[in-house]
Parts: sequence; C-alpha cells; structure tokens
Amino acid sequence: MTTPSSVPALQMGFSSDNIAGASPEVIQALLRANAGQAPAYGADDCTLTVQRRLADIFEHEVDVLLVPTGTAANSLSLSALTPPWGSVLCHAQSHIANDECGAPEFFTHGARLVLLGGDDAKIDPAQLADEARRKVGDVHSVQPSCVSITQATETGSVYTLDEIRAIGGVCRDAGLPLHMDGARFANALVSLDCTPAEMTWKAGVEILSFGATKNGVLGAEAIVLFNRDRARDLAFRRKRGGHLFSKMRLLSAQMDAYLDDGLWLRNARQANAMAARLAAGMQGLPGVTMQGKADANILFCQLPAAAIDGLLADGFRFYHDRWGPGVVRLVTSFATTEQDVDHFLSALRARVR
Amino acid sequence: MTTPSSVPALQMGFSSDNIAGASPEVIQALLRANAGQAPAYGADDCTLTVQRRLADIFEHEVDVLLVPTGTAANSLSLSALTPPWGSVLCHAQSHIANDECGAPEFFTHGARLVLLGGDDAKIDPAQLADEARRKVGDVHSVQPSCVSITQATETGSVYTLDEIRAIGGVCRDAGLPLHMDGARFANALVSLDCTPAEMTWKAGVEILSFGATKNGVLGAEAIVLFNRDRARDLAFRRKRGGHLFSKMRLLSAQMDAYLDDGLWLRNARQANAMAARLAAGMQGLPGVTMQGKADANILFCQLPAAAIDGLLADGFRFYHDRWGPGVVRLVTSFATTEQDVDHFLSALRARVR
Amino acid sequence: MTTPSSVPALQMGFSSDNIAGASPEVIQALLRANAGQAPAYGADDCTLTVQRRLADIFEHEVDVLLVPTGTAANSLSLSALTPPWGSVLCHAQSHIANDECGAPEFFTHGARLVLLGGDDAKIDPAQLADEARRKVGDVHSVQPSCVSITQATETGSVYTLDEIRAIGGVCRDAGLPLHMDGARFANALVSLDCTPAEMTWKAGVEILSFGATKNGVLGAEAIVLFNRDRARDLAFRRKRGGHLFSKMRLLSAQMDAYLDDGLWLRNARQANAMAARLAAGMQGLPGVTMQGKADANILFCQLPAAAIDGLLADGFRFYHDRWGPGVVRLVTSFATTEQDVDHFLSALRARVR
Amino acid sequence: MTTPSSVPALQMGFSSDNIAGASPEVIQALLRANAGQAPAYGADDCTLTVQRRLADIFEHEVDVLLVPTGTAANSLSLSALTPPWGSVLCHAQSHIANDECGAPEFFTHGARLVLLGGDDAKIDPAQLADEARRKVGDVHSVQPSCVSITQATETGSVYTLDEIRAIGGVCRDAGLPLHMDGARFANALVSLDCTPAEMTWKAGVEILSFGATKNGVLGAEAIVLFNRDRARDLAFRRKRGGHLFSKMRLLSAQMDAYLDDGLWLRNARQANAMAARLAAGMQGLPGVTMQGKADANILFCQLPAAAIDGLLADGFRFYHDRWGPGVVRLVTSFATTEQDVDHFLSALRARVR
Repeated sequence: MTTPSSVPALQMGFSSDNIAGASPEVIQALLRANAGQAPAYGADDCTLTVQRRLADIFEHEVDVLLVPTGTAANSLSLSALTPPWGSVLCHAQSHIANDECGAPEFFTHGARLVLLGGDDAKIDPAQLADEARRKVGDVHSVQPSCVSITQATETGSVYTLDEIRAIGGVCRDAGLPLHMDGARFANALVSLDCTPAEMTWKAGVEILSFGATKNGVLGAEAIVLFNRDRARDLAFRRKRGGHLFSKMRLLSAQMDAYLDDGLWLRNARQANAMAARLAAGMQGLPGVTMQGKADANILFCQLPAAAIDGLLADGFRFYHDRWGPGVVRLVTSFATTEQDVDHFLSALRARVR
Repeated sequence: MTTPSSVPALQMGFSSDNIAGASPEVIQALLRANAGQAPAYGADDCTLTVQRRLADIFEHEVDVLLVPTGTAANSLSLSALTPPWGSVLCHAQSHIANDECGAPEFFTHGARLVLLGGDDAKIDPAQLADEARRKVGDVHSVQPSCVSITQATETGSVYTLDEIRAIGGVCRDAGLPLHMDGARFANALVSLDCTPAEMTWKAGVEILSFGATKNGVLGAEAIVLFNRDRARDLAFRRKRGGHLFSKMRLLSAQMDAYLDDGLWLRNARQANAMAARLAAGMQGLPGVTMQGKADANILFCQLPAAAIDGLLADGFRFYHDRWGPGVVRLVTSFATTEQDVDHFLSALRARVR
Repeated sequence: MTTPSSVPALQMGFSSDNIAGASPEVIQALLRANAGQAPAYGADDCTLTVQRRLADIFEHEVDVLLVPTGTAANSLSLSALTPPWGSVLCHAQSHIANDECGAPEFFTHGARLVLLGGDDAKIDPAQLADEARRKVGDVHSVQPSCVSITQATETGSVYTLDEIRAIGGVCRDAGLPLHMDGARFANALVSLDCTPAEMTWKAGVEILSFGATKNGVLGAEAIVLFNRDRARDLAFRRKRGGHLFSKMRLLSAQMDAYLDDGLWLRNARQANAMAARLAAGMQGLPGVTMQGKADANILFCQLPAAAIDGLLADGFRFYHDRWGPGVVRLVTSFATTEQDVDHFLSALRARVR
Repeated sequence: MTTPSSVPALQMGFSSDNIAGASPEVIQALLRANAGQAPAYGADDCTLTVQRRLADIFEHEVDVLLVPTGTAANSLSLSALTPPWGSVLCHAQSHIANDECGAPEFFTHGARLVLLGGDDAKIDPAQLADEARRKVGDVHSVQPSCVSITQATETGSVYTLDEIRAIGGVCRDAGLPLHMDGARFANALVSLDCTPAEMTWKAGVEILSFGATKNGVLGAEAIVLFNRDRARDLAFRRKRGGHLFSKMRLLSAQMDAYLDDGLWLRNARQANAMAARLAAGMQGLPGVTMQGKADANILFCQLPAAAIDGLLADGFRFYHDRWGPGVVRLVTSFATTEQDVDHFLSALRARVR
C-alpha cells in the first residue's frame, strides 16, 4: 500500500488511523535528534523537554514515562492502580477489554476487567457507582481498584466534561483512581474545545495514556501521572516490561515534535474535520444510514451490501460487517486530505445511485 | 550531549554503544517508509521483506518477531522456552541476570535464572552439564528448561564456534533449547569471521535475539526462531507484552535498512576496529593494564585513579570503578571514528605521562 | 456455634454446607492413618489407594491430585487448560467467577474469565458455541481456551446428562477442553441417578474438581484427570501453589474414607433429601415463593421480611437479601437431620402464619 | 510403612520429621472440633483462640493466617514483603531456594531469590549488608526488598539470638523487612532456651512462618505478622492462593491443640533430645564422622558406604549421598523414641564394627 512517489497518491484506506505514517515534522525531528551522542535510557535533554512540555500543557506537575505503544501505556498505567486481586472497571467496548490480548491482566498480574455498560461506549455512572461498592472487603471477591475510561471512545464518541466529572466524582467517592485511555486524546480534546487540564485532572483523572501514534507519530505514547507518588514503581515496571528504550531519543524526539507548535492539535483538527466532511457528504445518500455519534475521527454507518462490495472493488479499505450486517467503520487521520474524502464520497455516490 | 552541527564534533562518550544514534541509511529508510499508508501490525511489505532477508542471511526458514528493545527480545524468547516452574541456565554476568530488572521473570511468569560460572563471562560447559541434570523430575525443584548464552558477552569476549557447539551439545543431550542473546550479534560475527548460520542453528541455537539497536538503528531487535513451532504463541505473548507496533514500519524500516547491503556488518567491523585501535594504542602505556579479552567492541582495562579523573575532567565519558577499583570499561560503536579514538588516546597519554 | 455436648443439639445453620464438620467415618480414618510413619508427599499407600478407588468409580484410568480446597482444585485445573493469553468460558454465576478472589487468574497467570448466560446458572450451549469461535487466531484478543461448568450449580440446579453432552459437543467441535467444578459432584450425581462416568468423561469432561469438603470431609478435594497428559505439569503447579502436603495422609485418609463403602453417596442423598423435605414443607405456605430448581441441596425462595427477621431472631442462620429483596438461600448438608428441617419448618410456619 | 498395630512398632524412618503423624492430642482436638456446626472461613471461635494464644506466646499483638503447608506460609509471607521487581535475600541452602519449586516466585509474581553464603546455612551479615545496598534505585536491576532466614536451618544449625539481631540490624539499616522461615521454629526455640519474643520481633523479625506440621500436627502452619499493616492484603492473597479453608477448624483445631499446655515445646524437646542421643551414640564409632552443628533435630554425618547399605538393608530409611559421597542426614521428630534411636545405634554399631 506504500506509495513512494513524491506527488502523494490519493489515500484509499479508511480502516484505521494507524495506517498513516508520521507527520513530516516528526521525521525531521528524528533526523535532527539522531546526530551525535546522547545519554541512554532517557537521561537526555529531549526527554526532559518532553516532560516539561507536558507539564505546561496540562498546567500541572507531572511525571512522564514514554513507551512505544498504547497497549504498553494502558497496561502499565493500570498496573500502577490495582493489586493482582483487584478489578478494573471499564466499558465492555473499551480497547483494554477487546484489543490488547489480555495485556492488562499480564501487567497487573491477573487483575480482572469488570465490564460495564453505557450508551455510545461511555460508562454509565450509576452502574459504575454500583460496581465500585460491590463486595468491598469481601475476601472471596476481587476488589474494585480503579476505573478506566477511553477518550475518545472506540466508537468515535467523546465524553463531555460533565460526563468525565460525573465519573470522576464516583471514583472520588469510592476511593478509586481514574485512568484515561487517551489513544485519541487530541481528537477528543479538539472536539470538546477545552483545555487538557479540564479534560483530565480537573475532572478527576489521575493517570493518562497520552496517545500520539494514531495522530502523527510512528510509535510513541506518554504515560502522564498527575499523582506523582506512583512514578517510582512505574519506572521499574516499564523496564521490566521491556519498554525502557536505551536510545530514548527515538521516542522523545517524536513526542517533542508532536507537542511542538501545536502540531498535535492541528493534526487532530484535520482528522476530525475530515470525518465531519465524510459524514456531511454521506448524509441523505440513498441506502446510507449514519450510526452513533461521530464526535471525533471515527464514523459508523450502514451501507448496502452492494455498495460495500463496490467500494472494496474500487480499492477502498475499511472494516465492515464486524459490528452487524452492513455496518461500516470509517476512520480518518491527520493525513487524510479533502481530496481523499471527496474521492471516497464520489465513489460512494456512484455505488448507491 | 547532542551535537546539531553538520560538521560532526569529536565524540567523547565511550560509556556504551547505546549513546550513538542510528546510521544515516536507517534514518533515510524511515523517511522513505513514512510515505503513504501501510497495513498495521506487521501486515506490510517491509516487515515481510525483513523476514525474507533474515531467512536468507541465516540460510534457514525462520519466523521473525520485531520488537523495540533487547530486553523485550530476550524476555519474550525465554518465555517461549520455559514454563513458570522452569529455570533458565545462564552466566552470572549475563545481561538477562543483571540488567533487565527481572524482565525474564516477568515474561516467564516466575521462572528462575540459575547463575553459572565460566571464564570471560562464557558458560563453562561442564558446569552446565551438571546443572542441566539437577533435580530433573523432582517436584520440589524448579526444572532446568533452557539455556541462554550471550554473544558477544557483556565483557567483550566472544564464544568461539567450538565453544558454542559444546554448549549446544550439552543442550541437545539434556533436551534443553538454547537461546542466544545477540544484542551484539554482529560484533561477534565479524569477530569470528563466520556465517550467521554457523554461529547459530548449526551450533545448536534454537532462538536468537538478533540485536540491531546497539549497532546502527535507534530501536529495533528481531526475535529469530529457527524452530518455527514456537512462533504462534510468541505472537500472542508479544501483543500481550505491549510490543506489537501498529505502525510496524517504525521497526521494520530500521531493520530492513540495517540488513541492506551489509550495513550491519560494516557497522560492526567499524566498532570492533575502533576497539582494537583503542587497545593497541593503550598497550604498554605506563600504569595501564588491559583486562580480559576484547574480541568485539568492549574493552576493560585498569587505569590510575588520577588518569580516570583527568579523562573525566577532559570531558570523556565511560564507566569506571564498578567492577573493581580503577577498572574502566570502554565501548565503541559503529559511529566511533579513528579521530574519536585518537583523541582519547592522546588525552590518555597526557594523563599517564 | 460449636456444640460439644454428646447429644447433638438441633442444627440451626442453613447458610452453607461448609458449616458442617466431617462424617465420623472420616475422623476415624484420620485417627487410624495417623499411626506410625508414612512416606511424605503422597508416596504413601493410602494416597495410592485413593487413586485406584477413583479409577474404579469413574471406570477410567485417571490421574489424581489431592488438594485441600475447592478453589485450589478449580484454579489448578484451569491452569492446566489455558495459556495466560487464553480465556475460560464459564457461567456468570459460577463459583470461579464470583467466589474465588481471582484465584483462576492467579494460577493461570492472567487468563480471562468470559462470562456466559443461561437459565438456572447453566451455560447456554448456543452462546457457548458463539464465544468458542470468537476472534480465534486474532492476536489482539484473548483466545478461547477451555470451558468450565459447575455441577451442581451455585443455584442448586443440576445439568442433565443431555445438557452436559451438549456442552461437551460444543467443546469437542471447538477443540476446547472441558472442566467440571464438582464441588457438589455427589449431590448432582445422586440427583441424576447416573454413573460418575456418564456425568463426566462420557459426556466430554476432561478434568474434574471432585469435591468432598462440602459433603462429609473437613478439607480435601481431588483433581481427577481423564486426559493423563496434563498430569505431569500439574504436579509442579500444585507444589508451586503450596498445595503439596508433606503429610499427605491428612488429605488421602479423608478422601479414602469418603469413597469407602459409598459414604459419599449416602451423604449426598441425605443432603438432597433434606433439601427436598424443606421444599415440600415450605410449599404453599402463605407469603412463601419457591425459586429456581432445587435439584440438589440448595434451595432459593422468597420470604416475607418479617419472617426472615423472625427466623433470624429464633437463631436460624442463612443468607438473605443478597440475590434480591426477600430472597433466601437455604443449604442442607449430609449432617442435616429430619429434626433440623422440621424444626426450621415449624418455626417458619409460626412466622408466616 | 504405616503400622496399624496398637503396640507401636519401632520406627525406622529417619528421612524427615514429616514422616511422623500428629500427636494424639491433636487428633483428639480434631475429633472434638468436628462436632456440630461452625462458621466457615475462620469466623469460628477456635480460629480466634489460636490468634489469641499466639499473641500471648509472642507477647505482642499479632495477625495470624493459618495455612496448610510451609511452602504456602513462606511464599505468602514473602509476597507481602516484595514487589515483583524486588529480590529476596536468603541463604543458598534455604528451603525457599531449594525445595519449593519456585513457589516464592509464583506468589511474588516473579521476585528474585538472591542467594547468599555463610557457614552452617546461616546468612553472613557482612555479605547481607553488601547485597542489601546493591543497585538500590537502579532501574535496570531487581531491588533488594526483604530478607529471609531459616530457624532452625536446613542443616540443623540454629541462629543464636545475637546472630538474628545482627541480621535484624542490617535489615533495619537497609529498610528491609525480615522474614523467618520457622518450619522448625519450636526446635530452634528450645535449643536456644529463649522466649519466642526474643527470637522474633525483639530481634527484628517482622513476619514469621510458624511451623507446626513437622512437630506434631498433620498439616497446619501459621503466618504470624508482628507488623499488622500487612495483614489485610495477605487475606486476599491467601484466598487467591486457594489457602483459605471453608472448614477452618481443620487447621485451627490442630494449631490450638499444638499450642495448648506446651505440647509444641514438649514435642520439640523430644525431637531435639533424640537427635542429641543419636549424636552421642555415634560419636567415636569407627568410620563415623559427625558434620556441622546439630543444634536441633537434624544431624549430618559421614558413614562408610558399606554401613549405609547395611542400614538400608536392615530397613532403616534416611537420605544419603545427596550432599556428598557418604554423607547421611538423620532427622528425628517428636514421635521418635529412645527405643527407636537405640535400635538405630545398635544396628549402626553392628555395621561399622
């Protein structure tokens, strides 16, 4: 699928935001960071800069651990919050529950994911409050130990600030720390048009998987701790998990460029705008039904079987018929252009005519 | 320590080969690989190419799993070879025993490292044969389950082919699979001037951590399996460990460039040659005693305390007094130049005069 | 609550079958077994006898591992059936899911319990068939690895032979081994009036937690393996879990007496008959509603709040209002007498009059 | 090997103290405890009594968790003291290192046992002090997290109070909690003729595996916590390990009888006296060399090969040639009689004549 030509070909993949490469700024930063010698294992200047940048962005003292994947960021974060006999309360549609092959159980040494419901892949606070009290102190039962929410969710919806605060309130009442899986943090942030602080610690989030890979870098995520007490143990857990890079500049240069000059926000705005453009263009087409809330860069819809076949035959790529017959998921990224969207829309119109 | 200038400054760090960046070819490959869309999680062409290249290089069908760090490569490899109640027989000076914060125990779910002796950080085959038979079948004891050797070793020595074959023979007799930690595989290979096949499966190695990070890339290692039966489970273990990259091109492009056109061998030859140049230049200097065998790119020596202080004051960087009073470790890399070496030697001569 | 007097007082506890002691025959057997010296760790004659008895009873070669608790029997059994990245398909109301504090996750090193539905706490085979195929081979997902059913169930129902065979058929088709949690195996067996073989391996069960503690011994359970390939590893797992007794006669003497001369069946018949007597006596009482199926020795019913309070004030003990308002669980055991039941019934009648 | 006759046959097994049964008082207590109903899971009176007895005996508030085996007691204790990335400093000849099949690694989720030296299987405090400081804070290394000593040791020696205090002092200085494996606690105590308090918390011990199985019960050990902060988590760990008994009276009745009226001390004195009688009788016999210190109930000696063969042919049982050619271990127990010892001595004299 790679396209070596210098005039970028139209991109026909809408299967995920992880099929894009990185922003040119990120690659350039890697090139620059590559020069000369640098202390290993994160004792370099660039890694320090990233920590400072994130503290500024979040208006809060933070500890930061860079890791290469979202699964590592999530699992390490959870391992800091629950004992092996604890449970992680999360939505049944969350990434940690469905797409990480049990990594949370691995890193937590066997804690249990307790799956909650709620519309639009967002945890129902009332159900959470019930589960948070369930069998507390009962030695026969795993113990509710932390809560994890995904922002933006796997279905493309975004928790409002009030919704996060409601979850945060339940957590505070129950004494449970709150983790946010922010693999698409930036997409959610620009969707809400709020500050990073408002969407995290001000609403009760204690530890954040700050994603970058899906939004403009090749492989770098930050675990951001607003409660710094947990940082020391996490450093050992990261090393023990094989996630401490000797040449840390590979991660920190990416993250540094990502945070520099608002690149992360620009990228997210582009991705979201392209999803909105897609949605707008599909609205009202014959046989096309939009589904759920497309608050960020993921969009679910229902298409006629013939249209799905036709688009695939045209060379477009997306997941379909996984979530029900005819259901299609379309994901845009920072690299998706108006031309890409319009190309898809025109093909779709031809197929549903 | 980074040096942005285009005329490369003299490099004064000899603390490790992990303080270098990557070869320009590798960064260029990243730049190229970044263009356009690519299937995620290793279903891309470049990842496939890497697997084919390694099969060619090793003259053997192989399965390959790319991971970002040596600790991940080693720990995942071992997890494929031992049950939780097994033991990993390894040298007391091995990296897995001393420098991975218990990652082998984490990934194997609690297997034990049994520490063996032997000169020059190389396992003594007779002792290995004893331990391989120890309490086999005794339910009260952890069970010998695999053997791990490091090539090149942590002290800079290199197992000869005969030595590996002797270890391999003990393993075969005892029914134990043999793992090779090849974080410095290329340095050992060019030191022995043999084929990759001779140094691995032909000598009895079943699974290899094929290192690249220390020898010219920023962060990429390959687990190479000569016994392909173990590959399926390892794929789940890698994902579960958070080491499956969505944008796999970050790893595969580095590895592809590393293997292309003999870069990996050229880099290793440069590193080894610079260590030899250092050793030659130090020979016979007053107060300087060379230690151990410097077969690859690591060199141990004993220096007068005043010389150590002086070199540090000059701005040189290296580890000292960790392995005994006055003992200094010097490590060269692919990026070390003759100028760098000569600069160090001239400073040293000034300090021991 | 203990009653040292020789004339047994009426027993007023119906909270569980684990509040009874052991049958006199079991204590006598302990007394006998205690004499003299015996080889440690199960190399004694009595342990061997237990294995032979179980082979006879099940009409099948078996391997047997004695352990002290049902949680140990279940968790060790499951650990033999699933890798850490696997899932255990079980009913949402199963003991392993609700009452073992994550012991299955501990012993399996983090496998996941996937909770299924089905009436009367029995797994719905159609739902099982779906889950057994779910994301098989998908590296992002835990892999369906075994199935566990509880016989009798936690709600007092009993799978019919056809129902077990249906589950067994799904397991066979999917290549998944089937575990049976038989904490109340004898109660189910006498309820079905079939042979142990029919209820287990002939219906597709591969590994059985053969309970005895709830039905006449103080603390002994047998893991019974119909597929003997799994026995060797389990011996290491048992030791590693701290469940290998040096003075194994403590367990084997109990189990031997339990199996001798049909004690286990007599005990189960008594417990079941007393539950039936309870149910018969409660039928039609004003304000009393029977719930679910009381096939074995557990009975659920709904009582008026005043009656619950009254019975508790009378000194009776049982769990209530855990499964819904007014819902009461009554459990009988081998030690429950007709007098105990009639005493309860007469008190109940007085309270609902 | 069991001897059902009422006139006790001479006991010819000296292989371990775990081949004896239980004291008659213990079996009688089981018989008494068996009557009537008792609350499950340790909420019974007898379990409470045991806790109170131990508090009195140790002159200290304690938390107590009863478990069935020494391996469970040790492993659970250690799991309370070290994180998964920690190390347990212990003697190379300790039971936890050699005889528990990696149970400590299992319960601690992969902590490492660091093996120390020292004469007579007792840790050398100077070496301990070194290891306790090793790589503290270095993220690449497992972290020294606790210390475990065995009292009496596996070779039959006993730490003096001063020696325990020296270890305790190193622990205090390094901030490491101290565990005592007291599988043969009573044997050590009567050997030192001191108080339980002096041998434990007054000397710096924080958590104790208080053994009973080897000294007069069939299967019961107590984890005794002098620092009660650790008790809550341990309750979950015990359940999760399958070591929480529903019919806890099986354990508590044994322990209660063991502690009652000094039975535990009488039993230990008998065992020790019989070992001393053995040693005295062997002293000076031709070809017989005593080894090490027999402070408690274990004795090592060297015998001529012919004598070993002869004694085995006579029907005596003991371990030999495991620790070197001709080396024999003899273990006495509370059940060993003067007749048993004299019988052995006379046979030995006949064989070395």
